[in-house]
Parts: sequence; structure tokens; C-alpha cells
Amino acid sequence: MGKNVAIAGVTGAVGQELLRIIEERKFPFSSMKMLASERSVGKKIDFMGKTYTVELLTTDSFKGIDIALFSAGGQRSKEFAAAAVKAGAVVIDNSSAFRMDPEVPLVIPEINAGDIKKHKGIIANPNCSTIIAIVPVWPLHKANPVKRMVVSTYQAASGAGQSAMLEMVEQAREVLADKPVTCKVLKYQLAFNLYCHDSKIGDNGYNEEEMKLLNETRKIFHAPDIAITGTCVRVPVLRTHCESINLEFTNPITPDEVRAILAKAPGVSIIDDRKANRFPMPLDATGRDDCYVGRIRQDISLPGNRGINIWVAGDQIRKGAALNAIQIAELL
Amino acid sequence: MGKNVAIAGVTGAVGQELLRIIEERKFPFSSMKMLASERSVGKKIDFMGKTYTVELLTTDSFKGIDIALFSAGGQRSKEFAAAAVKAGAVVIDNSSAFRMDPEVPLVIPEINAGDIKKHKGIIANPNCSTIIAIVPVWPLHKANPVKRMVVSTYQAASGAGQSAMLEMVEQAREVLADKPVTCKVLKYQLAFNLYCHDSKIGDNGYNEEEMKLLNETRKIFHAPDIAITGTCVRVPVLRTHCESINLEFTNPITPDEVRAILAKAPGVSIIDDRKANRFPMPLDATGRDDCYVGRIRQDISLPGNRGINIWVAGDQIRKGAALNAIQIAELL
Repeated sequence: MGKNVAIAGVTGAVGQELLRIIEERKFPFSSMKMLASERSVGKKIDFMGKTYTVELLTTDSFKGIDIALFSAGGQRSKEFAAAAVKAGAVVIDNSSAFRMDPEVPLVIPEINAGDIKKHKGIIANPNCSTIIAIVPVWPLHKANPVKRMVVSTYQAASGAGQSAMLEMVEQAREVLADKPVTCKVLKYQLAFNLYCHDSKIGDNGYNEEEMKLLNETRKIFHAPDIAITGTCVRVPVLRTHCESINLEFTNPITPDEVRAILAKAPGVSIIDDRKANRFPMPLDATGRDDCYVGRIRQDISLPGNRGINIWVAGDQIRKGAALNAIQIAELL
Repeated sequence: MGKNVAIAGVTGAVGQELLRIIEERKFPFSSMKMLASERSVGKKIDFMGKTYTVELLTTDSFKGIDIALFSAGGQRSKEFAAAAVKAGAVVIDNSSAFRMDPEVPLVIPEINAGDIKKHKGIIANPNCSTIIAIVPVWPLHKANPVKRMVVSTYQAASGAGQSAMLEMVEQAREVLADKPVTCKVLKYQLAFNLYCHDSKIGDNGYNEEEMKLLNETRKIFHAPDIAITGTCVRVPVLRTHCESINLEFTNPITPDEVRAILAKAPGVSIIDDRKANRFPMPLDATGRDDCYVGRIRQDISLPGNRGINIWVAGDQIRKGAALNAIQIAELL
């Protein structure tokens, strides 16, 4: 008894990854509807032995659909999610449109799968850099509440979409050929350069990406008081985010305790070989499901052994978006 | 009355930049001796209208030399600096060989120029990522003592030398051509990837680069109690280091106060346009003298307005090494 599934934004980087993961994980579907905006209507997509034609995303797209996976940007989620819910579908939304809506569960299955039950038609998928940061932090927080996190990110081009990835590669070719660099999708040159995340900056000086890290973590952890400061940076990497995370705990904690907790944590793999100087890199995480953790050490700047540093790498398109959405769908 | 100058390691990235800066700043020299290891002996270098021949660096190289600029690696500094001092030269050493020697001043002219006076023949140039981090932190620390710094770095290939820069570019070509990636100089693929700084890791889990940030800052600031934790990361950028710096101060401080202090600070430029989302990037700092600071904001994770986040970009070869050395030479 499979589900009738629709994917809104199927031609994007996350949409394509959703298809790959549905196939890999043998997600039980009995029908698949591929939706996108005008630009992509009529495109053919081969998927699991069948050829699908991309249809236009409209308010009428969801008749008979059980699960609607939205990854077509916040504007389209706002425009079409209600129609999908009205038609009887459960929407799993990858945009930021509903994440902070108190009526909408914001879910990372490894952390707060129980929140799914509270949904009223929409379940929100958290932001990529939030997911990758907090999958490994959650089991530590459960054992010893985290009081404060200081996070600096190294975010891949994929976070800005498939066209950003292609442009970054094109920019690299242009730099190597000594040609002027094209910036149509990316705000600045990203190849052989990097820049602070170019989402809108609020009155407090934080950009939206950094505020997501704070607000989404509080909601997912059910920890309204956890203190977080983030600095989000785009780096010339294709599709894996890395994050340097400094954690201050309520009680003393050692690197060995952290390692023991993370070794048993779902969705986490450890690469932490000090002797060989081998720690998680984007290339390790790309195409993989887990968040990779290394550089596990005592923060020598905090008294009483209450600080720990970790370094995390996770595939932005996969665990940062598509995989997390399919995991939610599986729980439904 | 110019000085008789020798440069040990003249063919390296820092050596070449030393020559450029000597010319740019019209450093008064009456003779110039260009020294390097066997590999480069006999090479011709055109400099300010004259052609020089690279000579072998030996213990006999320093007769009549007033200032010996060493940038040939720690091993050569240990081997030859004493001979230079014995011959009457003052050594300005860019390696880590003598930095933590209590008899050797470790100097950033904007911070502790006064320490130069205490030298006994050798003055050490701090590590690149330390210089770039603390040039802007010092004026803030003077106004309101910094208690704790949490630093994550985005370090360029140039920190591993000219050959690392060339290899990173070659790796990018290889990736774009779908060829296997060469890692002769770099420990791992750096193009379209990044990795934790591959210096030796000590028992506490920190690598040498991170411990330099702690120990050198304490020495330069004359602040043995300042608490610092760093995570040093190599990114696919050519020659500018960026650093995400979280500062905890003794007393409350506002972003406006920080901006006012930094606006008057020597060696610091501010790029901090929230509306245009324009902050320091490697491309801004490359080839420039100043450390560029932006993302100046209150750390919302610390109570009592005692926290500030800043983002810094500085040219690794220039202020991170060659420029700082020439500034020291000018003070002599």
C-alpha cells in the first residue's frame, strides 16, 4: 500500500535528490506526480524505469495526493501548500515559509520525531545549516544541556541552488582562464573566494541564515533559552556544509564522553584521527546520509571542563534537505 | 644611510613579497643580498633596476649585514640565525623557531612596537593567522579587556607556501577536467574542498596553528590570562585568510563603540555594509596592507552586552608575513 506522492520543485537540486533518495530507500509510493513552475513544464524525467512528464504546479495539482514534498522556494510554498492540505495531502515543506509557525512542527527525525504527530497538514523541514549543526549536538544536549553555542559555518554553493553550483564551477573556469567572472546567481565571486551568507540582515546585524540557526534550534530542541551565536559563510565547495561548533555545557564533560555519546548517535559518524590528521571534509560527506563529526576536544578557554569543540560536515542537499524530508515522510 | 639587507628564502612567496614591499615602501637599503637553499642558487632576480643572483644561505652569508630577513622555514632559521646575529645583523624571523623564546620579542608593530627594544639580535614575526586575528582585536582589548576569544579560521593556500598555491590551482584544473587530483604539497584535495589545518596535533587535540593563536596572542598582548579557543581550517582561497571571531569583554560594549574604535585603529579598514550585504572577502584584502573588518555585531548569546562578533580578512603573505616583517625593520 504505497502513498500517492507529489514533488513540487522536482527539477531543482533538492527535487532531484528527493527522487534519488526515494529510489535508494525504496520509499513505498503507488503514484508519483512531478511538479514545477512554467519553465520546466513538459520536461521528461526518467525515474525507476518509468518516464514522467513535469506538470505545472497549481492549486489543482494535489487531488488524491497523500504526501506533497515541497522544494520550490518559500513563495511557492506559501502559494500552494494550503491547496495541497485542502486536497487531503500532508505537506513536507523544505522552505522557510512555515518553519516558525507555532502550528507547524519543525522536525529532524533523529531529534524530535514525536512532534510530527502534532501536524495540521504541514510539517516543516529545517534549514540545511541548522540540521547539519544540531544532529550531533542533540545527543550531547540530552546528556548534558547545552547552554551556549558559538557556530561558524563553511557553507557550500548548493545552498543557493543548482544554478549556484553550476555558476561556481563556471566562475572557477573563468578565473583559471583569466576571464571576467560571471555573477548572475551568486552575489559575488565564490570560486577561489568566499563571502558572508548574503541573506537579508536584520536590525541586530545577524543575517537570516544565522537567525534560523538560533530560532529553529530552540524550536526543535524545545529549548527556548539555549543561547546561540552564528556566523554563516559561503565557501567555494559544491554541496557539503561544514561547521565549527563551540559548545558550553551545564556540567563538566570530556571529549571521551562526547565520543562515546556520538558513537551511538543516529545519523552521526565520527572521523577523528588526530595522529593521521584526518577529520571530516566536504568530500567525505558528499552523497552520504550522516553528519560527520571530528576535532572533538576540550575547549581550553572555558574553566571547569564545560566546553567542547566539534567540527561537522554534512551533505547540504541530502541530510540538509532531501533526506530529512524523506525521513519525515517515512515516519508518516 | 641605508641598511645592508639580506633575505633568506628570497624565492618563496613571502621572500618575493618582501622585495615588493621594500620597493613600495622605499625601505632605505644600501645593499641587498638574496639568499636561498641549493635548489635556487644561481637564479637571477630583477629588483629595482638591478639583477641579483641568488646565493647559497650559509653561516658565512651575513658579513656586513645589518638586517637579515628570514623566511626559509623554522629549520633554516634555527640553523643560520645565530650566525647572522654573530655577524652583527638583527634577524627578523618569519618562522615559528623563536616566537615563544622568552628572550625574543614577538612583534606586531600596531600592537607592541615597544617590545622591539628588548631584542638580543632576533625579533620574531608572529604567525599569519595570529596577526590577522589580533590587529583589530588589540584596540578593542585596550579599551575593554578581552576575556575570551572563540576563533574559526578560513585560511588560504598561501599559508602552506607558493607550491601549495600552485598545487591548489592545478587541483582545480584537474577537478574541472575530471582527472585524478594531485596532492604532493597539500595533504588533501583543497580545490572545491576544505580541511582542518594539517599541522601536528597535541595531546589536548589542538593543532599547532591553533596553539600559536593562543600562545602568541598572550605574548604579544602581555595578557597571560586571555582565554582563546581556535579552530583552524584551510579553504580553497589563494592568499587571504578570513577569521570569524567571537569576543567576550570584561565590560559591556556596543557595536557602535567597536566601530568607533576600529575606525581609528592603525592597520584596520572597515567594510561593514549591512544593507548591501557587503563585508570583507579574500578578494578585498588580497594585495592590501590592512586587516579588513566587518560583521560587527552584538553577540546575542551573551548576557549584558559583553559579547561582540567580528569577521576579518587579511592578506596572508602581506600583513600575515612580509609586511609585518618590513614594518619591524622600519622601526629598527
